[in-house]
Amino acid sequence: MTQNASAPQPLKIAVLGAGTVGTDVIRLLGQHPKDFAHRAGAPLEIIGIGVRDSSKDRGPHVDRSLIRDDLEALVEEADIVVEVMGGQEPARSLILHALENGASVITANKALLATDGPALYEAADRHGVDISFEAAVAGAIPLIRPLRDSLAGDRIERVLGIVNGTTNYILDAMTRTGQSFDDALADAQRLGYAEADPTADVEGQDAAAKASILASLAFHSRVHLDDVFLEGITRISSDDVAAAERLGRVIKLLSVVERVTGEDGSEAISARVYPVMLPNAHPLASVGEAFNAVFVEAEAAGELMFYGQGAGGAPTASAVLGDLVSVARNRVFGGKEPDESFYAKLPTAGLDALSNPFYLALTVVDRPGVLADVAGILSENGISISTIHQEGATDPEGSDASAHIGIVTHTAGEKDMQTALEQLRSRDTVTSVDSLVRVEGE
Amino acid sequence: MTQNASAPQPLKIAVLGAGTVGTDVIRLLGQHPKDFAHRAGAPLEIIGIGVRDSSKDRGPHVDRSLIRDDLEALVEEADIVVEVMGGQEPARSLILHALENGASVITANKALLATDGPALYEAADRHGVDISFEAAVAGAIPLIRPLRDSLAGDRIERVLGIVNGTTNYILDAMTRTGQSFDDALADAQRLGYAEADPTADVEGQDAAAKASILASLAFHSRVHLDDVFLEGITRISSDDVAAAERLGRVIKLLSVVERVTGEDGSEAISARVYPVMLPNAHPLASVGEAFNAVFVEAEAAGELMFYGQGAGGAPTASAVLGDLVSVARNRVFGGKEPDESFYAKLPTAGLDALSNPFYLALTVVDRPGVLADVAGILSENGISISTIHQEGATDPEGSDASAHIGIVTHTAGEKDMQTALEQLRSRDTVTSVDSLVRVEGE
Ligand SMILES: NC(=O)c1ccc[n+]([C@@H]2O[C@H](COP(=O)([O-])OP(=O)(O)OC[C@H]3O[C@@H](n4cnc5c(N)ncnc54)[C@H](OP(=O)(O)O)[C@@H]3O)[C@@H](O)[C@H]2O)c1
Ligand SMILES: NC(=O)c1ccc[n+]([C@@H]2O[C@H](COP(=O)([O-])OP(=O)(O)OC[C@H]3O[C@@H](n4cnc5c(N)ncnc54)[C@H](OP(=O)(O)O)[C@@H]3O)[C@@H](O)[C@H]2O)c1
Repeated sequence: MTQNASAPQPLKIAVLGAGTVGTDVIRLLGQHPKDFAHRAGAPLEIIGIGVRDSSKDRGPHVDRSLIRDDLEALVEEADIVVEVMGGQEPARSLILHALENGASVITANKALLATDGPALYEAADRHGVDISFEAAVAGAIPLIRPLRDSLAGDRIERVLGIVNGTTNYILDAMTRTGQSFDDALADAQRLGYAEADPTADVEGQDAAAKASILASLAFHSRVHLDDVFLEGITRISSDDVAAAERLGRVIKLLSVVERVTGEDGSEAISARVYPVMLPNAHPLASVGEAFNAVFVEAEAAGELMFYGQGAGGAPTASAVLGDLVSVARNRVFGGKEPDESFYAKLPTAGLDALSNPFYLALTVVDRPGVLADVAGILSENGISISTIHQEGATDPEGSDASAHIGIVTHTAGEKDMQTALEQLRSRDTVTSVDSLVRVEGE
Repeated sequence: MTQNASAPQPLKIAVLGAGTVGTDVIRLLGQHPKDFAHRAGAPLEIIGIGVRDSSKDRGPHVDRSLIRDDLEALVEEADIVVEVMGGQEPARSLILHALENGASVITANKALLATDGPALYEAADRHGVDISFEAAVAGAIPLIRPLRDSLAGDRIERVLGIVNGTTNYILDAMTRTGQSFDDALADAQRLGYAEADPTADVEGQDAAAKASILASLAFHSRVHLDDVFLEGITRISSDDVAAAERLGRVIKLLSVVERVTGEDGSEAISARVYPVMLPNAHPLASVGEAFNAVFVEAEAAGELMFYGQGAGGAPTASAVLGDLVSVARNRVFGGKEPDESFYAKLPTAGLDALSNPFYLALTVVDRPGVLADVAGILSENGISISTIHQEGATDPEGSDASAHIGIVTHTAGEKDMQTALEQLRSRDTVTSVDSLVRVEGE
């Protein structure tokens, strides 16, 4: 591009991290430079790429002469910093340093946002610059911007998200093949859908980080990672999956964030991650493999769903670059992204405030009156039964044969269900409480 | 809100039209005024509501004292004009007048944008103001903004949209109940899903208007309504629906806009609306009733889908209000929406440039050799058969019994298929060509 008096100055971009996402950001930025210049209002020039190990080979798309390991100095030279290194530190300090220096920031770092988001958003507000994070939740799916901008004139009531591809892949495989959790996990690891240490995915921490970001955004309030109730999928058995199928349902790990109204009319936010049974006809039920999807219920818009790839280098880079164009435009034309100033400041509510139907699986001693006993305990706690399924004696050799009972309740309080579970566990006719899965989407 | 030195001036909003959409825009704006002030950066004040008949009762949410019929004067007083009256004139002149006066405009008027979009976008550019139109395509679904902003760093290859709720409702009913088109249409009219004069919906004009808007946006080029190939659903029979089911497919009316590369490597845009057979597993296949959904294929992001309500007062108002907040923010904080400056300027390609598999239904004379004859004609035109289904003689009383043949071809050129159809029609063994439906999503 020839430089002349009226041509806008290029914007100086620092990319922190050249791993899975960073390499694709750099590759795509280099591919259609004129398109980017048109869309952003000025050329976007990468002035440096910060990494840990500057000797590593980064493939054909990364200009080696731009690689640096003095990340703080790099940040000081930039108009816009793209943070795709991940982790808490030094990412946090570098982002703050960038904002303080008047640079705008784009980050894909959900783990950092879930703990330090508010401090970062406030720093951006204070310095009058943007911080954007479309890539941090549901990868390629345009979600942050639609929630924040497109629904800015609406009132979001509830968001249900499949936002962790690894667990969706595993549950989908269990559903399709009848595999156990362990076998499905091993396959997912072999195929690259799950990491060697899958804890953050299967225990739900990754989904919880995203729930905290979604909740903050949807309800203009602060929701810290610690405020998110968390239950992973490691206890989901092939029996649970088969029971769901019998009930015309599938099991999905959902991040649920929702506005709850107390008895006194006061509002609070509930944020939680747990496996649920969804009816097959629910739009989220058919989201297969490692895809992500987010279902939104808004007062005026009604039901919306956003679907796409939640991870991967190129998809995540697409989201980063969409942010980059918007943030760049703001620097060229003035204007700023809506800030996250948390004007609603709603408190968070614990699980006890909620009620929903449950699926409950028990192993009991196969003896007359046991079923009546179980039903009695539920009933004493105000829990009524919608359907019940019993499988005959499976251990006829034992002193007492045992039977498996699957119960779907009508809507019941979480607290009441916990009390009922304690009482059930203390009965000598109840051998074990095998599962408790919430039922959604009636 | 108390006025003090530092409080921002309210923005003056003129609403043109107080029908289905306008009434809900006004109602929702009045419901949470503080939320809007927070999000927009200034209070939003309706200064007037333009209508045709100022004596009509508009319900409890519309302040009668704001009703006016001097629309041109109203527009001159406004900072932001919300056009929800519809039609070509006076909507077009009023929008141009607003832009020339330095007001920003929000419109839901797909019919106007499909014919006069470029002139309006250019007027907005020229006067340095915004024109936004999220509500014009797929109602409540955030789509325009994601395509334009979130995917600004990506390259859109193809968009497949179910963007007309009426036709989706009719096709869904035909699929679920086996009804004929006429019966399903009559039901849709009775239930308010189709208008008394359903032409614009069932003949595909409404979907074509949206295709032209989507194509312009996705490919940064001008695509006029006249450049969109158009075929409605009036010829879809219950036999076609049953054939689709046999093939594991459903029939949907799709707006397809796509980047096509010619043999010489030159790029063009194809925009078309027609019924297609989609595999049941395709994400668009399960979009039921009057819901809309748009499926996007982008280079880096991969496959995305956006789903929600495509029409109705409140959903459409939600989209209008999202635009309103963004446009208001730009007036408060500076900045502007990305313009539609058509820098790519790709030409449009006719249907002849395309190829895809087809479903072809014929009634033939039930005589030895006829099938070979049909296959021969297809083959001469370079069309090979994937599956064939024959139903025995249905008219055993005639001089010659007739049979029905359903053929699915492999990918074939549109031009070749048209030539083959002509030849088939001229054979005296072919009683009639009953349907030709494109097959998508292999
Ligand atoms: N991968 C995905 O699909 C995906 C999806 C959504 C969001 N994200 C988020 O995107 C971010 C990046 O993910 P990724 O998968 O691209 O990670 P990655 O492949 O591990 O790459 C991380 C990059 O950051 C650099 N880096 C890490 N720590 C550093 C330090 N202390 N100093 C300097 N450089 C450092 C690394 O340098 P070296 O190469 O020298 O080690 C590497 O180039 C994370 O926040 C992640 O959560 C990823
Ligand atoms: N309805 C939907 O679900 C939907 C969805 C997406 C987009 N849209 C678009 O939104 C727009 C409005 O649709 P709508 O369903 O709300 O239409 P509507 O119910 O027919 O209302 C139109 C309003 O505009 C006023 N108006 C029409 N022509 C006028 C003129 N020449 N001078 C002054 N006022 C005039 C009418 O005034 P009177 O009341 O005095 O007659 C009426 O209040 C259209 O462009 C439509 O395509 C609608």
